[in-house]
Amino acid sequence: MKLRDIMNNIPREKLAPLPTPLQRLENTEKLIGANNKMYIKRDDLTGVGSGGNKVRCMEYIIGRAKADGCVGVLASGNGQSNLCSLAAASAAKAGMKCYIVHNSDKPETSVGNALLNDLLGVEREYMGACDSSIREKYVYEVIDRLAEKGEKYYLIRNGATTGHGALGYVNAIIELVDQCEKENLDIKHIFAPGGNGGIASGLVYGNALMGFPFTVHIISVEDTKPVLIEHIEKTIKEIEEITGLAFEFEVDKAADIVDKYMGDGWSFNTPESENEVLEFVRTEGIYIENVYTSKLMYGYKDMVKNGMVDGDSAVIHTGGFGSLFSQY
Amino acid sequence: MKLRDIMNNIPREKLAPLPTPLQRLENTEKLIGANNKMYIKRDDLTGVGSGGNKVRCMEYIIGRAKADGCVGVLASGNGQSNLCSLAAASAAKAGMKCYIVHNSDKPETSVGNALLNDLLGVEREYMGACDSSIREKYVYEVIDRLAEKGEKYYLIRNGATTGHGALGYVNAIIELVDQCEKENLDIKHIFAPGGNGGIASGLVYGNALMGFPFTVHIISVEDTKPVLIEHIEKTIKEIEEITGLAFEFEVDKAADIVDKYMGDGWSFNTPESENEVLEFVRTEGIYIENVYTSKLMYGYKDMVKNGMVDGDSAVIHTGGFGSLFSQY
Repeated sequence: MKLRDIMNNIPREKLAPLPTPLQRLENTEKLIGANNKMYIKRDDLTGVGSGGNKVRCMEYIIGRAKADGCVGVLASGNGQSNLCSLAAASAAKAGMKCYIVHNSDKPETSVGNALLNDLLGVEREYMGACDSSIREKYVYEVIDRLAEKGEKYYLIRNGATTGHGALGYVNAIIELVDQCEKENLDIKHIFAPGGNGGIASGLVYGNALMGFPFTVHIISVEDTKPVLIEHIEKTIKEIEEITGLAFEFEVDKAADIVDKYMGDGWSFNTPESENEVLEFVRTEGIYIENVYTSKLMYGYKDMVKNGMVDGDSAVIHTGGFGSLFSQY
Repeated sequence: MKLRDIMNNIPREKLAPLPTPLQRLENTEKLIGANNKMYIKRDDLTGVGSGGNKVRCMEYIIGRAKADGCVGVLASGNGQSNLCSLAAASAAKAGMKCYIVHNSDKPETSVGNALLNDLLGVEREYMGACDSSIREKYVYEVIDRLAEKGEKYYLIRNGATTGHGALGYVNAIIELVDQCEKENLDIKHIFAPGGNGGIASGLVYGNALMGFPFTVHIISVEDTKPVLIEHIEKTIKEIEEITGLAFEFEVDKAADIVDKYMGDGWSFNTPESENEVLEFVRTEGIYIENVYTSKLMYGYKDMVKNGMVDGDSAVIHTGGFGSLFSQY
C-alpha cells in the first residue's frame, strides 16, 4: 500500500485550515538576485492557539489519543513552553481535556504562554525548576495518577517530536505535492529547520516515500550534522512503526542536512541570523523570530544566492511570532 | 458597469493570502444549540505584520498610493497603534517607504508594536502626548515637509477608515460570495464588528451592490446605533466617489445595525464580553481579544442562540491576538 493510502487510514483530528498558503517571495528574489522563484509556506498561519508548526503535529497526536479512548492529552515543558499551550488549545478545539506539567515554579503574574494557559483554563501542575529529564520521568507518575481516577490521558512525549507528531510533516509533503499541482507551481526544493528533528523527520520520510518529489534541505539550528541525523533517524523509526512502510535510505542521502548556519547552537544567535530578522521583515513584511527561523531563513537565502539551488524553492515558516517579544 | 468589474479596475496591491479560511464552529454550534451551521472567517490570518483586518484595507490604500506616484505612506496614531505598524509592514512588502507620526512620547524601551516598528526600521516622529485631532491636522504639515524634500507620501487618514481602506471589505464580500460557491457553502448571514465603521461600510456597501447575497449584521462595539450609522454613511459616500456606483439604500435597511452589546463603549468590557474571551478559546481553541472581538462574538452567539438568525452564518475574526497580552 502506498503512503497516501496509509496516511488516509491513520486517525487524525483536523485542526488547521489546510493547505497553508504558499506565497511568492518576489522582493527577496530581487534582493539576492535569485535565478528562480522563491516561496514561503505559511505554517505560522495554522490558526489554533498561537499557530505554528506544532498544530500539524497535534492533528495526529490528538487523532491517536481519541482512537485510544483517552479523555485528554498530557503535555509537559517549562512555564513558557509553546508546545504546552498549543497542546491545550488543540485539545480545546478537539473537545478534549489537557493537563500540563511544568518543570518550573508557578509564576507570580502570568505573562506570554502562561497567560494564554490561564485564559484556556487548563489544569497545570508545577514541579519547580528541574531538569527536563526528571520531568520526562515524572509525567508517567502523573499519567498513572490520572488513570487511577478513571481518566485516561495520552502522553505527549519529547515535545511532540515523536512518530505521531512527525506525521504532521509527512502529511505536509503530501499537501505540498497536491498544492503545487493545483496551483501549477514547479517547486523543486523545500527548506525547513532542524532542531530535535520533529519537522525534519516527517519531511525527509514523507518526501522519500512519495518518490522524492522535492529535494529536502534541513538547516540545523542546534546540533552538528551527525547529531541531527541521529535525531532524525530515531523519529523516522517511530514513523515506520506507525505506517508499516520502511524508509530504505540513509538520511544523509535522502536529504541535504546542513549544519553550517547553526553557530553556537540552540538559542544562540549568529550575527547573520540576528540581521536576518530585520532584513526579512523589511523585505517581505513578514516577521520571523530570532535564533530559529532566522537561521533557517539566512541559510535558505544564502544557498539560493550562491547558486546551490537549481529550480524553484520554498521555505517553511514554522511560526513563533509571539516569541519575538521576549527576544529583545 | 457592475461592482465586480469596477473593483477589478481599482489599483490594488496584493498583500494577504486570500481567500482567508472559513472554518466551521461545530463546538460552538453544540454549545449554544444552534439550528444551523456557524463559521468563522479568519481575517486574523492575513499574514502581513501581525495580521488582522487592516491588511485588506492596506491593499487598496497602497494600490492608490502607488498609482498616485507616491514613494511611501504616512500613518499616524498613538505609540502602540496597530494601524501604524500594519501600514509599515504592508509598505515593506509593497516595496514602499512608511513614515509614522505618533501623538505620544518616545518610549524608553520598545515593547509591543513599538518593538515591531524598530525591527522594521520605520522612520518615526513623536509629537508628545496630544489629542488625535491635533495629530490629524499636524500630519498635513509633515506631508508637505516630505514633499519639499521631493518625496511624495500618501496620507492614511482616520486610521485607514476611508473610502479606499473600506474597499478591502467591499472586496471581502466578493471573496465570500466566490468562496461560498467554490466550497459549496450556504452562508446567509455575516456578522462583523462596528467601531468607527471601516469594516462595516465596506461590507454594507459591497453586500448591497452585489445584490444582497447576505444579511450583514454589524455589532457595535463603541457607539449607539445612530452614531454608528453616521460613521458608516460617511465612509460609504467616500466609497461611492471612488467606484462611481451609488448606494441607493438607507444603511439601517440595507443591514442590521445592533447596539445592544456595546456596553459602555470603546475599550470597556461588558461582563459578557469578558467571559466570551474565555468561553470562545475554551470551545474552539481560537483566541479573541477583549473589548472588541469579544463583544462581536458574544453578540453573534447570543443572536443565533435566540433564534434571530435563520440559516447558516459566519463571523469575521478581525485579529488582535497581540493586544490580548496587554489586556490582562
